[in-house]
Amino acid sequence: MTPPPKQLDFNALFLGPKSENYPFFKEMLGFLMDDHAQWRKDFHPDDKPAFSAREQEDPAFQETILRTRQALAELAGDLQLNSMPWFSPRYLGHMTMDTLMAANLGYMLTILYNPNNCAYEGGPATTALEIEVGRQLAALMGFDPKRAWGHITSGGTVANYEGLWLARNLKSVPRALKEAMPEAVAGLDDWALANVPVRRSLDLLEAAKAAGRFDAVRGRTARGTGLGGWKPGKVLVPQTKHYSWTKAMDVLGIGQDHLVQVRVGEDYRMDMGHLRELVEGLIQAREPILAVVAVVGSTEEGAVDPVHEVVRLRRECEERGASFYIHVDAAYGGYGRALFVGEDGRFMGLPETRKALRERRIDHAESEWPDPEVYEAFKAMSEADSITVDPHKMGYVPYAAGAVAVQDKRTVDLVSYFAAYVFEKKEENPLLLGSYILEGSKAGATVAAVWMAHKVVPLDVSGYGRLIGASIEGADHFYRSLLAAEAFEAGGRRFIVKPLVRPDFNVVDFAFNEAGGNDLDAMNSLNRRLYEAFSYKSGPVYAKDFITSKTSLDYAEYGDAPRAFVRSLGIPDAEWDRVRSVFVLRSCVLTPYLSKNTTYAEYWAGLLAALRAKLAEL
Amino acid sequence: MTPPPKQLDFNALFLGPKSENYPFFKEMLGFLMDDHAQWRKDFHPDDKPAFSAREQEDPAFQETILRTRQALAELAGDLQLNSMPWFSPRYLGHMTMDTLMAANLGYMLTILYNPNNCAYEGGPATTALEIEVGRQLAALMGFDPKRAWGHITSGGTVANYEGLWLARNLKSVPRALKEAMPEAVAGLDDWALANVPVRRSLDLLEAAKAAGRFDAVRGRTARGTGLGGWKPGKVLVPQTKHYSWTKAMDVLGIGQDHLVQVRVGEDYRMDMGHLRELVEGLIQAREPILAVVAVVGSTEEGAVDPVHEVVRLRRECEERGASFYIHVDAAYGGYGRALFVGEDGRFMGLPETRKALRERRIDHAESEWPDPEVYEAFKAMSEADSITVDPHKMGYVPYAAGAVAVQDKRTVDLVSYFAAYVFEKKEENPLLLGSYILEGSKAGATVAAVWMAHKVVPLDVSGYGRLIGASIEGADHFYRSLLAAEAFEAGGRRFIVKPLVRPDFNVVDFAFNEAGGNDLDAMNSLNRRLYEAFSYKSGPVYAKDFITSKTSLDYAEYGDAPRAFVRSLGIPDAEWDRVRSVFVLRSCVLTPYLSKNTTYAEYWAGLLAALRAKLAEL
Repeated sequence: MTPPPKQLDFNALFLGPKSENYPFFKEMLGFLMDDHAQWRKDFHPDDKPAFSAREQEDPAFQETILRTRQALAELAGDLQLNSMPWFSPRYLGHMTMDTLMAANLGYMLTILYNPNNCAYEGGPATTALEIEVGRQLAALMGFDPKRAWGHITSGGTVANYEGLWLARNLKSVPRALKEAMPEAVAGLDDWALANVPVRRSLDLLEAAKAAGRFDAVRGRTARGTGLGGWKPGKVLVPQTKHYSWTKAMDVLGIGQDHLVQVRVGEDYRMDMGHLRELVEGLIQAREPILAVVAVVGSTEEGAVDPVHEVVRLRRECEERGASFYIHVDAAYGGYGRALFVGEDGRFMGLPETRKALRERRIDHAESEWPDPEVYEAFKAMSEADSITVDPHKMGYVPYAAGAVAVQDKRTVDLVSYFAAYVFEKKEENPLLLGSYILEGSKAGATVAAVWMAHKVVPLDVSGYGRLIGASIEGADHFYRSLLAAEAFEAGGRRFIVKPLVRPDFNVVDFAFNEAGGNDLDAMNSLNRRLYEAFSYKSGPVYAKDFITSKTSLDYAEYGDAPRAFVRSLGIPDAEWDRVRSVFVLRSCVLTPYLSKNTTYAEYWAGLLAALRAKLAEL
Repeated sequence: MTPPPKQLDFNALFLGPKSENYPFFKEMLGFLMDDHAQWRKDFHPDDKPAFSAREQEDPAFQETILRTRQALAELAGDLQLNSMPWFSPRYLGHMTMDTLMAANLGYMLTILYNPNNCAYEGGPATTALEIEVGRQLAALMGFDPKRAWGHITSGGTVANYEGLWLARNLKSVPRALKEAMPEAVAGLDDWALANVPVRRSLDLLEAAKAAGRFDAVRGRTARGTGLGGWKPGKVLVPQTKHYSWTKAMDVLGIGQDHLVQVRVGEDYRMDMGHLRELVEGLIQAREPILAVVAVVGSTEEGAVDPVHEVVRLRRECEERGASFYIHVDAAYGGYGRALFVGEDGRFMGLPETRKALRERRIDHAESEWPDPEVYEAFKAMSEADSITVDPHKMGYVPYAAGAVAVQDKRTVDLVSYFAAYVFEKKEENPLLLGSYILEGSKAGATVAAVWMAHKVVPLDVSGYGRLIGASIEGADHFYRSLLAAEAFEAGGRRFIVKPLVRPDFNVVDFAFNEAGGNDLDAMNSLNRRLYEAFSYKSGPVYAKDFITSKTSLDYAEYGDAPRAFVRSLGIPDAEWDRVRSVFVLRSCVLTPYLSKNTTYAEYWAGLLAALRAKLAEL
């Protein structure tokens, strides 16, 4: 028998639900703090202290220290009363869990050095780490790290803005060339100018650089002219989109009127038939398409859009003279790509992936994750122009750390404050990150936390693959329990429960109904009351047996996608047509601990008992 | 004799240049960590640990722990080699100093609770703190906290974006009303529609709300339509603007062509004569003015623009039917407003301010700060529509914490995802911060740090006033030393040094020249080499005697403002006309320790010796 593959022990990654690893955490923290304190003392050791031990006895000094003590005690008490117990497997709500000890300790240490990655001079150490982390994330997305560009943002929202900002300015390049270097686009009509493929635009810009006319061209892009005399086109997003896309249309001056929603199917993935129909309609109407956004891990369902189909559609369009930018919003699912990356860095085949995952599972082997469509979608991410991926979600890093990865770093020249390609060559401004990104000042500590996470948890199947795989296993357990659950009795009434859909990732949505109940309003009210019972809505969560989140699937946003689910709970179609909104409980299972059969069984029993007790009460 | 006013002891605020307060820091940190670990244990005390002590002995567990240890050691070493010793008074470079222990400890503690202030459910405790901190900052700016709105951003850049975003959407309101509720703006021509004063626009929106037509109107603002068919007008900024304004014009789709630079005088404050001329020209040409930005604490010089004069100019314009939005970029200087706020919260008169500052100084009493123009500028900030103010600058809070304060919170309805005024009344969505701001996910820990800072250091003359006052005193010491410095000998040559300008705040720019030297290129080269000697450019800063930053004042950006300064160093005007760029050393004096005469004298002597030795070498 061959030994099992060397694997990360996720028990050693977190402080733990019962502070199991606190002795290690505290020891390391003490060591790091002492080390920092000594670093200060050793800087010009002959400099006198800024104040004497005697001055530290002054009443004003003592009073100020006391004030600090009191404020900290107040903060600590407040946090304990009003925080979410993410750390516990009893918390199955939003996309949060405990964060990696390595990341927390790295963050805490770096705060004392307080680097700012806006300019190299503000954080030499962490600027270098950010470049490294950016390359790692770009590689994880399947981009060529030499041609790609990635960096940390304050969150997925800002990363989405940045993707659309790049897309918008890029779309205006051919038009700018027509003004400032017309020979480069000779013979192209307005439609052709609005449909130059991404790489072709970047090559044309390259030519402008070579001709010394880059600044003149860039000055005529949207960056210089604004959107005053020009419409960049439509942005197509699935109905499951995060609301930051709506904000992005406003912020970037494109306008929400130009956001087009693509329907989702009963699996909550983008409906390719509808996307094709929309794209065809726009092409027929000669309306440019600025970008298509695919979501990998939707906010409410964890659904994975068919990125590979979007890529194929673009290829087909390009054969007909139309093109668009592709951004993948993988804020949630992005780190999941590690499940498919072998320890040698290769994106594995599907059977190989399944084998690798099976070998790394603890107890559970029923799951057939990933579904081939999900596999293909993750694989095709490498064809996107830019991708949002949040370390503070499935990277298990504390807030606020998002990231954006860009396939072709030449795109960045379109938004950089300087002409990036010029400055890269000069030692003058080595790494003025703030001049290439949307944000300015940014905490080097965030970057240190992400770097630490990647250092301890490799970005492949042995590291994040194993950790996230365990969370998917836990979600699968939960999904199967809900699927198999028989009608049960509570308070003299009988109830049923159904999961919304088989999870593409690790989000499980579900709803209860009274057995035989055919009133959708009553069912929604029942689930809302359950949510309230198991959330902050009914008092401090510290006293709860179980904490969940919720969402409403409304016709206005989801069309008829929820119909079949509602039907599965015994509600007639006519009720759906009348109410057109279904309230569901939503559990993001980020914890890896529920992958273990025994642990899972305990929590499931407890959860069921708590739900039953609450149903009896309602 | 009356006792001196009760005062904050700034010695007790920081870890200290020699880790003087480390015993207290470590004790508090230990207490807070223990307290958190216990909180986890006490949550459902009967839940079993997720893993056993025995499992903690597994080789894989130990291997994972070891990996964490090694990565932390690597990070710690890297930080020590490549970080800036902000904590030392030898660091007189960028806008950074040691950060408040209270803020650092608050930050570290909150990381373990990992709240996300995007939605209330993600961080109940810290969302409440953010509302509190937002009110505090709004009040500090002189806004009525009941009518105002303020929140934390990831930095000044994003706060500036948010200010301009509000301005842009607001400017489109009358145009939107013309489409969706024409009776509200009956009789107004295009020019009048583009010049409706801010408050009037907000009142009109109020009427739209009352008529149930708010969403229809909002849908026709820039938010809905984009900037495709409309130009929002020019944005006027002083030459000393931060480069985020240039980025903002791009990001928001307005276009950099529409940014108009206002000249600055020899004092580096916005030249009101030029502003008036530009405004007059635009009015004559019937070109709308979207906004005028005034800077309080310019990035390179710490200059304070005459905000009061901008306010007066707008009043005059409004009498003639023209109007614009006023944003104050006080990212740097904003907290300085505390110098003028008495312990009763009143904005004090000038003599009262001077008296209060005199009473709180340690040794030094020569300074006549503030100059009456600076006083009036700070006072008039309360008339701005929105203000950027960064806790991570003069709030002495770790990165990344900016903030924006908005005079009239109704403005926020123009950018909110929801119709804010509707949701405010519902318990449904109590505080979905992410839907009212530009960013989404945001660290509650940042907010906790700012809250802690404000709790320990009051936002008035007794707290931040005293702390920032001490930093201004230190800068004044430094300025006077430079002003009084006689020609000195180094390496057989004689040198002179001159400060650029009397600081409005706490930035001191200066340059050396060889006595009798009349070659501007040679002078620039001399100062550049000095900068390189006293920065990371010539190796690890840990080995430096003094660390500074630099800036170049170029004709392209500053016009002729630097001419007189260059002349003061013995350079003929013709040289300035030829070279049109002067390289200066730049010291932001954020440390309070140099306010003490004895400490200052020691550092000044050391600094002079270091400079002299380096000049002798060059």
